[in-house]
This record gives sequence, structure tokens and C-alpha cells, in this order.
Amino acid sequence: MNLNECLKRIEPQSGEWREAAKRKIHRLTMPRWALGRLLDLAVDLAGMTRRLDFPVARKRVVLMAGDHGIVAEGVSPQPQCVTVQMLRNFSGGGGAIRVLSSVAGAEVVLADLGVNADVSGIPGVLPYKIAMGTANFRYGPAMSREQAVQALETGIRLAETFAPQTDVFATGEMGIGNTTPSSAIVTVFSGEEDPSPFVGSGAGLDPALLKHKSEVIREVLVRNAPDPDDPVDVLAKVGGFEIGGIAGLILGAAAIRKPVLVDGFISTAGALIAQRLSPESAEYMILAHSSAERGHRRMRELLGKEPLLDLGLRLGEGTGAALAMPLLDAARAVMTDMSTFESSGVTEEGL
Amino acid sequence: MNLNECLKRIEPQSGEWREAAKRKIHRLTMPRWALGRLLDLAVDLAGMTRRLDFPVARKRVVLMAGDHGIVAEGVSPQPQCVTVQMLRNFSGGGGAIRVLSSVAGAEVVLADLGVNADVSGIPGVLPYKIAMGTANFRYGPAMSREQAVQALETGIRLAETFAPQTDVFATGEMGIGNTTPSSAIVTVFSGEEDPSPFVGSGAGLDPALLKHKSEVIREVLVRNAPDPDDPVDVLAKVGGFEIGGIAGLILGAAAIRKPVLVDGFISTAGALIAQRLSPESAEYMILAHSSAERGHRRMRELLGKEPLLDLGLRLGEGTGAALAMPLLDAARAVMTDMSTFESSGVTEEGL
Repeated sequence: MNLNECLKRIEPQSGEWREAAKRKIHRLTMPRWALGRLLDLAVDLAGMTRRLDFPVARKRVVLMAGDHGIVAEGVSPQPQCVTVQMLRNFSGGGGAIRVLSSVAGAEVVLADLGVNADVSGIPGVLPYKIAMGTANFRYGPAMSREQAVQALETGIRLAETFAPQTDVFATGEMGIGNTTPSSAIVTVFSGEEDPSPFVGSGAGLDPALLKHKSEVIREVLVRNAPDPDDPVDVLAKVGGFEIGGIAGLILGAAAIRKPVLVDGFISTAGALIAQRLSPESAEYMILAHSSAERGHRRMRELLGKEPLLDLGLRLGEGTGAALAMPLLDAARAVMTDMSTFESSGVTEEGL
Repeated sequence: MNLNECLKRIEPQSGEWREAAKRKIHRLTMPRWALGRLLDLAVDLAGMTRRLDFPVARKRVVLMAGDHGIVAEGVSPQPQCVTVQMLRNFSGGGGAIRVLSSVAGAEVVLADLGVNADVSGIPGVLPYKIAMGTANFRYGPAMSREQAVQALETGIRLAETFAPQTDVFATGEMGIGNTTPSSAIVTVFSGEEDPSPFVGSGAGLDPALLKHKSEVIREVLVRNAPDPDDPVDVLAKVGGFEIGGIAGLILGAAAIRKPVLVDGFISTAGALIAQRLSPESAEYMILAHSSAERGHRRMRELLGKEPLLDLGLRLGEGTGAALAMPLLDAARAVMTDMSTFESSGVTEEGL
């Protein structure tokens, strides 16, 4: 699927299957809607997949890596080489996302969309490099419009490639400096000129550098003038390759009616791009958690979605998505395994 | 262990092991404390168990059932017979707690502490019946002081009995009408006279009945005058057998240094009794979730603890505890399986 084909294929959730799920839930032996948001999740999953016994067993984190030219402006406390070091760490089975995915029974796919290093020697990294990192978007766009489309279509392709072995996708990312494009993206889509309410400490920036980060983003938005009505333009001017990949993965998953767990701050920036390209794609997103990064709240407001967890995470990689996965297993089990008033002889009186 | 022996054995978490856990976490390949409350949980589990590789695999929900004489006052929309019906449902493998425990890999133990029915024919229900339900506490205490101690010691005994096969305990309960004693308990320990801020809709009470429920509790508190400085008195005068059992289970688990996941509104009422009997016991409690039942917030404030999940649950049974269990597996995996800066060659610079 290219981008346009993909966008055309995305349909809303099925209202019929949502209603069927609600009817089934009302027959289960518990007071009405007593499992709260777990039941909302079950209804969503039924609406996405058009099944009451929606499959969720085969989970896959697609972790996309990319580097960011903007780090030259001193917006990140960590050196750029950490991106490739962490990719090697993930490849070797280390790193939080590998550990937490393993606990959740999820596979992890690693993909290079734009790491500023030769990663061909790292086992298991899928080679989709668009460039050796984005350009420093303080002095022009982060990437060309063609590259932005390429990033989106890489994500779509990853969704298509793994769809036959995947029930639930999850977004993940690695890229030193990628809170900066993410803050820029939420600022643009908020229609604000001042990025500072959406600029957080990322991996641990001190207050002076935080101010500098805000100033850089403010300047960038004036100079590059991304068009909020043209999400590809936003991605090209102030985005990142892995952020485009995340947006594409979400769009691809939505086109084939698979749920996507959206991880934290950077992933939700990708989700905003996807939503602007296809509002219906948001119906296939499940927000995994409230990131501790400033600006994530506004992202959630723009998406109009509530996350499942709130654990003060600010790591990324897909870790929040992995932690939320057991809730999908629980939602399915409620739909498939719980007894009904009829089957159990429990009286419904008073409910 | 009798109650007094149990209370004497409870010690605080180990500060030394907490510090050791923090030191280990700082060596793991991620920005400082980037997994937020998952790491706080890991530190707690290390402090409770005195191990960095704290065991969490063998999980057990102890679901205690009891009936409540106060239902004669029309405080519950459901008839009392639902308690035993649900116990039969659980025994047969139905009901939310069985399904969610199965997903979490947890065992469920059923215990009768005071169901108003002969439950001897229900397979798997442990026979610890204290009475055929509590007395209607509108006209005197819910139970004698001796029965209150018996309920507590039943919980302690359950903790001792299952300790050799259990790494993590979880509280569960079933008892039509048990939000009423729970609201009474939180009102007493809050030092308030007006219960209405702590009275919620339970399994689905309408607004007029809700007002009636508040009035009944207000009257009961005046007439029975439970002494907030004497938790056994509070349990006897306005409690329930399963609530005493929950408190005892927590105390027993704390005495043998096992973590206890505390479920929702009724379980947290039991946790308040335990905390008042032994403030150190709270160091072994993990609050599973924010119940949607009004009054749970105040309970959490009194315990001084933040719950892991907030999913709008109001079912009880132990369901919130079961949903939180995968986070304990995740916390352990971070401690035992994540790579360190040293082992992975990832630079620590900037962190």
C-alpha cells in the first residue's frame, strides 16, 4: 500500500460490533459496567476487529530508530551515539523494552529508519534507512517531503509485513533528541506559537537547557512555518524519520483493522500525524499510558483519548505499550470466558 | 500465630534492601528513574522481601465471603442470596475474578467467613464460617469482639497456610451489602460524623437509596459509637467477617514479609483496620487500583498510598488486584533481566 491507498482503506470502527459487545457484556455476572474502562477497551477491540472474541495473543512492538540533526543545537543531554548503542543493546536482548516485552509475551522488531551510523552489523535490525539522521531543522526542514512520505510508507510497509503474524501492534522508538521534534509537532497542531508548555526535560535536561530547547523550537517554528493543515509538511519540516514511521505503522494497522498500542511522548507525536492524515485512524489507537513528559497531556487532548496507565513513565522505546498489554488479554478473557447470568444461575435482580 | 503474636512479628521494610535496589536501578540502561512508579514498586518489593530478585511468580487471591445483617435495612439493591450464588459461580470457574486471575497466572482460594447459607456443598470453599452473616448493626454491634478477633485470626491463618506456595497475596471478597460497613469504617477512621462523602452507589443504588444508606450509617455510628482508637472495636461494631479476614490476611502476610495486593473499596476498608492495628503492616500493602466507589480516595489518603491502576473499576472480588499483577512481574524482570551500562557498553554521559 502506498500512503494514498492506505488512507483510502481506513474505515471507522464497526458500530454494529460495538453494540454486540455491549449486549454481551450486559449478560456477564457482574453489576453493570463494573469493570469500567476494561469494558470500554473490550468494546473498542470488538469495534476494531469486528469480533467478540478479538484476538490479542500475538503482540508485536515495532521499534523504529532515527537520529536528529537538531541535537547539534544542544537540546539533548545525551550524545547522539547513544541511539546506535541502545539499538545494539536491544539487539542483544538488553534494554527495558526487550525485558518488558518478554514479560508481556510480545515480540520486538527493530527497524533503522535513519540512524546516523552504519547499523548493518547489528543482528535483527531491519534496513529501512532513509538518511543518516534528519537535517538540523534550525536551518531548514528536517527532511524533504519525499523523505517524509518515505518514512510514512516504511511504517505502513512494516504493518503489512508483520500483519499475518500480529494481532496487536505497539509503537516503539529510539532516537536521541526526539523529544524536540515531538514538542514541535504538538505545538504546531495546538495552533500555539509558544512551545514552552509542551517542552519537557526528556532524558534529564536541566532547567537552563530546557529554556534553550524551548527557544530553539520557537525559532524553528517561525523559520520553517510548518502548515498545520498539511501533516506531511509538519513531519518534513520539524519531524523525524522514526516519528513518520510510527505514524505510518498506525495508519497501516488501521487500514488492516488491527489495534495499535501507542506508547509515550514521541509515539503520540506520531499518532497526531496519523490522526491529521486520517481522523478514522484514531479509532484503532489505544493510548497505553500518560507520559511524565510535559506536553503529553495536550497530545492526549488533541487525540481525544484517555490512556490506560499512569505510572510516571518517561522512557519511550515502547515500554509503556508493553506494560499495558496484559489489559488487552484481560479484556479478551472477560469477553470469552466469563459466565453469564443465564449460564451461572446468578440472579440479575437489583442490577 | 494469634493476633498478638502476629502484630509483634511485623517489622518495617528493610531500608538496606531498598537502598540496594536503588543502587542497582541506577546502573540499568535508561535515564534516571525513567520507569517511574514501576521502579518505586521494585524498591518496595525489595524492601519487603529483602531480595533484589524478589519472587512474584506464585500469586494467590484469597477471596473471603461473608453476609451482612444490615441488608435488612434496604442498603443494597441486590438480594442477599447473590453472595452464595456468586460463590458457586466462582467455584465453577465463572465470575470475573476467576477469569482475570487465570490471565494473570494467579490461583484463587475461596473461604467462607460468614455466608448466610450452608456452603458445604460448594467445591473448594474453605470452611471458616464464624456465623450466618453479621448481625444488623443498626440495632447493636455487627459481631462480638471475640468474633472480630476470630475473623482477623482466620485471615492470619490463611496467610500462614498458603505462605509456602505463595509469593504474592491478593485480597478478594464477596458479600452483598459490604460497601455499607466499608463506608462506616472509613467514616470512623476519618473522624467524621457525616458518612455521606464516603457513601457510594455500590452495585448500583439509585440516588434516593443512596441518601437512605448515608442516613442509616450516620445513625449506626451514633448508636454503636465505635472507638477509632480501637480497630477491633470498629470491626466488631460496624464491620464484616470478610473485612476482618482481609485485615488478618494483610497482617499475616506482613508478619512473614510477603507483599499483599489490596483490591478495591471493601479490601481497602480491611487494609485500614490492619494499618490501625499495625502501622508497619502498610509497608507490605500494594494498592492495586483507584476504586470508582466514593470514599476510596479518603481511604487511600488515610493509608498514604497511591494505587497502581485507575480504570474506573467498582466490582471487587479481587479483580483490580488481579489486573495489577503483571506490573509486579514487570518490576521483577527489570531488576533481574535488564542490561547495565557496564554490561552493554551504553554510555552514561548526560544522565
